[in-house]
Amino acid sequence: MATEEQIKATVQRYLATFSAGDREGWLDLFTADATVEDPVGSEVCKGRDEIGAFWDTSRSLADAITLHLVQGPGGNEREAAFAMEARAEIGGTTMVVPTIDVMTFDDDGKIASQRAFWSASAVQPA
Amino acid sequence: MATEEQIKATVQRYLATFSAGDREGWLDLFTADATVEDPVGSEVCKGRDEIGAFWDTSRSLADAITLHLVQGPGGNEREAAFAMEARAEIGGTTMVVPTIDVMTFDDDGKIASQRAFWSASAVQPA
Repeated sequence: MATEEQIKATVQRYLATFSAGDREGWLDLFTADATVEDPVGSEVCKGRDEIGAFWDTSRSLADAITLHLVQGPGGNEREAAFAMEARAEIGGTTMVVPTIDVMTFDDDGKIASQRAFWSASAVQPA
Repeated sequence: MATEEQIKATVQRYLATFSAGDREGWLDLFTADATVEDPVGSEVCKGRDEIGAFWDTSRSLADAITLHLVQGPGGNEREAAFAMEARAEIGGTTMVVPTIDVMTFDDDGKIASQRAFWSASAVQPA
C-alpha cells in the first residue's frame, strides 16, 4: 500500500508535469503495465508506449493544456479520486473541461490505473 | 443505457433526498441489487436492506447531513462521477467532508453501484 502522502505527491506531480508539457516526467508516474481509460468508456491504453501515444494525441488537440485541482485527492492507500479542471488553449480561446480522475496506486505510489470522467457536453469557454 | 439527462436527474435527486432526510426517496434511486461502498475499501452493502442500514448508521452520526454539489456529474451513459461536500451538523458544529462519488447506472437511470472516495484526514470544520 502507498501512503496518503505518496498519493498526494503523485497527484500533484501528475498535474504539474502534464501542465508543463513534461511528457517523460508524466509517463514516469505510471507503473510499467499501467492502464489509462480517458474518457471512461473509450479504449484502454496499456503500458508506456500506448499511454505515451495517448499523451501525444491529447497534446495535439490544443496549443497548451493546464490541469487545476478543484477537490481531493480522497480515498485510501490503494485508490483515490480528485476533481480538476483541464484548461485547453486552442487558437486564443480557453476551453474548460471539468474532469474527475479515479486512480489506483502501487506500493510506491505509482499510478497503476487512471480512469477519467468527463463529458463533452460540459466543455465550455472559460 | 441511460441518458445524460436521466443521470443528472438521479444525481440531483440523490443529493436532495439525502439532504432532506428522505430515506425511502433516497433508497428508491437504487436498483434492487445495487451496491454501496462508502468509503471505498470498506465493506460493500448490497440491496435495499443493507443500503438502508448504511443510511441509518450514517444518519446516526450527525444531527443533520446535507450534500452540496461541487463538480459534475461527468462520464457516459453507464457511469458517472461527481464531486460534492457533505456537511454534517454535529452538536452545533458543521464538519465538511469533501467527497467524490462514482456511480454506475441501469437503463432507467437507477443507481446500480456507488463508490464514495473521501478521507478522514480531509474532514474539517466549516
